[in-house]
Amino acid sequence: MRDFIYDMNSSILQHINSPKELRELSPQQLPKLAQELREFIIAAVAAKEGHLGASLGVIELTIALHYCYNTPVDNLIWDVGHQAYGHKILTGRRDVFETNRQLNGISGFPKRSESVYDTFGTGHSSTSISAILGMAIASKLKGDLHKNHIAVIGDASIASGMAFEALNHAGATDANVLIILNDNAIGIDPSVGALKKYLTNVKKGTAKDENIFECLNFDYTGPIDGHNLDVVISTLQNLQNKKGPKLLHLITTKGKGLKQAEENQVTYHAPGKFNKDTGDLLPKSNEFQPSKYQDVFGLTLVELAQQNEKIIGITPAMPTGSSLKYMMEEIPERALDVGIAEQHAVTLAAGMTTEGFIPFCTIYSTFLQRAYDQVVHDVAIQNLPVIFCLDRAGLVGQDGATHHGLYDIAFLRCIPNLILAAPMNELELRNIMYTAQLGLNHPIAIRYPRGRGVLKEWKLPFEKIEIGKAQKLKTGTKIVVLSIGHIGNMVSNVLEEVEDMEKIGHYNMRFIKPLDRKELEQIFTSYDHIITIEDGCKTGGFGSAIIEFANENLYQKPITVLGIEDKIIEQGTTEELYQIAKIDALSLKLKINTILNASK
Amino acid sequence: MRDFIYDMNSSILQHINSPKELRELSPQQLPKLAQELREFIIAAVAAKEGHLGASLGVIELTIALHYCYNTPVDNLIWDVGHQAYGHKILTGRRDVFETNRQLNGISGFPKRSESVYDTFGTGHSSTSISAILGMAIASKLKGDLHKNHIAVIGDASIASGMAFEALNHAGATDANVLIILNDNAIGIDPSVGALKKYLTNVKKGTAKDENIFECLNFDYTGPIDGHNLDVVISTLQNLQNKKGPKLLHLITTKGKGLKQAEENQVTYHAPGKFNKDTGDLLPKSNEFQPSKYQDVFGLTLVELAQQNEKIIGITPAMPTGSSLKYMMEEIPERALDVGIAEQHAVTLAAGMTTEGFIPFCTIYSTFLQRAYDQVVHDVAIQNLPVIFCLDRAGLVGQDGATHHGLYDIAFLRCIPNLILAAPMNELELRNIMYTAQLGLNHPIAIRYPRGRGVLKEWKLPFEKIEIGKAQKLKTGTKIVVLSIGHIGNMVSNVLEEVEDMEKIGHYNMRFIKPLDRKELEQIFTSYDHIITIEDGCKTGGFGSAIIEFANENLYQKPITVLGIEDKIIEQGTTEELYQIAKIDALSLKLKINTILNASK
Repeated sequence: MRDFIYDMNSSILQHINSPKELRELSPQQLPKLAQELREFIIAAVAAKEGHLGASLGVIELTIALHYCYNTPVDNLIWDVGHQAYGHKILTGRRDVFETNRQLNGISGFPKRSESVYDTFGTGHSSTSISAILGMAIASKLKGDLHKNHIAVIGDASIASGMAFEALNHAGATDANVLIILNDNAIGIDPSVGALKKYLTNVKKGTAKDENIFECLNFDYTGPIDGHNLDVVISTLQNLQNKKGPKLLHLITTKGKGLKQAEENQVTYHAPGKFNKDTGDLLPKSNEFQPSKYQDVFGLTLVELAQQNEKIIGITPAMPTGSSLKYMMEEIPERALDVGIAEQHAVTLAAGMTTEGFIPFCTIYSTFLQRAYDQVVHDVAIQNLPVIFCLDRAGLVGQDGATHHGLYDIAFLRCIPNLILAAPMNELELRNIMYTAQLGLNHPIAIRYPRGRGVLKEWKLPFEKIEIGKAQKLKTGTKIVVLSIGHIGNMVSNVLEEVEDMEKIGHYNMRFIKPLDRKELEQIFTSYDHIITIEDGCKTGGFGSAIIEFANENLYQKPITVLGIEDKIIEQGTTEELYQIAKIDALSLKLKINTILNASK
Repeated sequence: MRDFIYDMNSSILQHINSPKELRELSPQQLPKLAQELREFIIAAVAAKEGHLGASLGVIELTIALHYCYNTPVDNLIWDVGHQAYGHKILTGRRDVFETNRQLNGISGFPKRSESVYDTFGTGHSSTSISAILGMAIASKLKGDLHKNHIAVIGDASIASGMAFEALNHAGATDANVLIILNDNAIGIDPSVGALKKYLTNVKKGTAKDENIFECLNFDYTGPIDGHNLDVVISTLQNLQNKKGPKLLHLITTKGKGLKQAEENQVTYHAPGKFNKDTGDLLPKSNEFQPSKYQDVFGLTLVELAQQNEKIIGITPAMPTGSSLKYMMEEIPERALDVGIAEQHAVTLAAGMTTEGFIPFCTIYSTFLQRAYDQVVHDVAIQNLPVIFCLDRAGLVGQDGATHHGLYDIAFLRCIPNLILAAPMNELELRNIMYTAQLGLNHPIAIRYPRGRGVLKEWKLPFEKIEIGKAQKLKTGTKIVVLSIGHIGNMVSNVLEEVEDMEKIGHYNMRFIKPLDRKELEQIFTSYDHIITIEDGCKTGGFGSAIIEFANENLYQKPITVLGIEDKIIEQGTTEELYQIAKIDALSLKLKINTILNASK
């Protein structure tokens, strides 16, 4: 049934349908199981794609945890969740693992609705200590003193502010929590920051007697070798007898067991398809593909920064994902990775503007939710000209519910002083970046999607874009489509195919805020029916802004708002998700035809 | 001119119009200046109200900083800013200090537009390290190696996640920053958490050799007595010769110099008017006043928690301000102050729900901005039934721009699964709390304003409120006013006075989400003109929800949206601010009359 090749004959893994069977194994059988689990994951990800290195790094820990603890009665949370593939496979999801990250399949992250072993859904980093502490305090109130509460968190994630808040609280309680620090010195990109340096010193034995976790009142154990099953198991068994907040410092290697993944940890975080036997990545097609938006951002920023020495690039732990890496390579002194610290990233940028610098702060749309107050309080209220580049805005595909960037338009549109733009293609992204660094006297957020643009050539001479000016793409007579961002390309394609195409107008609005009120007046007087389309939530989004405009100006034309309905969208390919959300080409075509037919 | 009494004759303070004059004083003159500055602040706050204890605690530090450093060339940031009164008075604002926190007066917090000495506006906690690091990195890039960068942050604020993120980044740089930890063991309420325990041990000398700040690569100095001017000055002078990230640990007493303020630090954080000579609070009027909403929350929660042992109360550092203190006194094991840790508070609550508990997480509207991602990612996506009680929603008055709770409706309305309610009075708050703890299978946010309700008696038997059901308060024929929350009381009063009152209907909508669609259909077919009114931003707010409803359902009635325009609102009394925002009684009356006249 499985459509990736892994020979289960004579394997132990084939018999492990839950941790119950695992716990019946002898300790001597566990290394073989570890080997099998590793091979299973390699085979699965090689064929079906997904996150690789993180799970390979915790194979032994995963086995040891389910072996030593009474899951799911004992609560276990995997921070972020990239590393939870082994956990999923050992907790009853081996035979559906091939559906990982697919539409209607299992999630790429732990998910409560999927399994009782997934006690808390993760995806964004650094939430696990708070959640496990909540459970531990709850157990204590229930008088359940024997239940264990374990969170596994990486060294990159534990450096994020939220994790510190939770450690600070936990350390002042007698809650029975075990925090396992999975220290592999890397998140998606290599870890940064003073804590990372400190942990490096601890590992090298060059740290002083100081122990930062003991300062926070944790019972500290470690560092231990996270790939030595005997050591991990005996350590966990010892820790079961200790009460109160405990921290186990585990040293692991991301990608452990696959040479290329150990040596190229960034690439093999999520390598795409590869040869499961050699580990080699499958060769890329030679066919032309448009650039990724992130690369348009990253390469354009280098160009701009070479011309404008006031420009600074800031990423919270996403040099590769955001493509800030290009600037980090070319102009390292002005390109900063601040770690998983969105809050700090935003206010750091705000501070820099007060000294005349021009920070481009690149954050995934979904992660900007972590810095919302900083956008409001430190940037917008003071009207400081930070330039936010919001990657992964809209539907992101296989990462699913936790990672879609659906709310940014709604949560940013209400903030005074902030300009909100969504370029339709690579060239517009490039030119709005150019325009922003010329000086706007306002902060600006520029949102663009995951994935590729549409142009063959975008490295053209810079042109200034007028702030708040919409672009007329097509004149019509009856219906007009107002699009925002990349989805406008789909609209253009549809309008070339639709019957009665001469009746349909199309505007690329470019700016959600400020709206092009002058052009909108023209639009509302010229057309009978307005369609808005966006890859964001309908509630409070771009369409809502157009409705507000119409209401304020007493236009009583029908407005059809296309966008994401008010419910959680799970994983799938972006194509599938666009169809589900009915913002795909066919849905738009049908909608237009319905409106045209009704008016006949 | 000054309308509070402080005899400036023969004072040194009268000659200090900027730090320049301060720096011309001899060290021997500084203690007298400290005494005068203390008396000036006491006299001012006694007469005009404001924040007292924090500024009294840093008198010596304030003088020492401006004496030793070349402000405003050297950058100085006061975290939160409650403690910056002395700073304001010494930096040219002595003679306008009587306008503190008043409409068109100076802000109660540092503010860039007010003075070049206020290098970064504050209000919310824990932003100062990020901002000062941004400035320090900028200085370094400019080649300005002699500029100093100082942030003063309290021990409650430095325990917040954002501050840790900034420390973690700063410690890995060679940026020339000095972080002054103003350790007085209290924020607004006493500090909590493991770090506070650790700092207490440091002060007592009972800590081990560990130093948590040295772990983060800071050059640590201290602890020193923050009220000994000589020691503070000589320490600062020594630190000026050190490069790189430094932390000075200063021990101070909040309220220093006023006996009552030292002894009752919570009360004297912002004591209201008091006798400047005796320190005694002015007697409260015996006249009946309705209860504060916060007390309705706090006392109702105790009642509910006594009946329902699954209820837990959680506050991030606001036991007094939120009135969770009542439950903390009555049922301490289930009422938690987690410190300034909104992110942690929300996910902790989410964790507790998975064990069957019912957490009431009370957070000021403006501070929920700090936990936006946690509301989306940890609560709403998993549909966990956390009950958020959002105090200080709407215009908060004298705390001004940084503290108004204007965006919550817009930023919460777009989140799937979340119920959003705004009770009109004390009884509704009480009953929606009662309803929520019966079990909703959804998270809910209940927003209510700062200040007092309207009822004489609200401790009535609990009644269940139907989720999503609006309340018809008055039937009319032409115009209908749809109000949300406390502002509905003003609407009711207006509708008793307006001419043609029989023509005006009024609904208390109670829920922003879900909307009462059935009732709205009735409303839109029955009335000619709809007015919506809310104490929140118009963009994306409650009115916007009503417009969205009308658009979806093809109602083409005019809708007048009253609420806060898309700009920053500064400080003033709430009455003044309601007038400015045109959501006061007179403005509503005029609006109704205009609509009525136009329809005649």
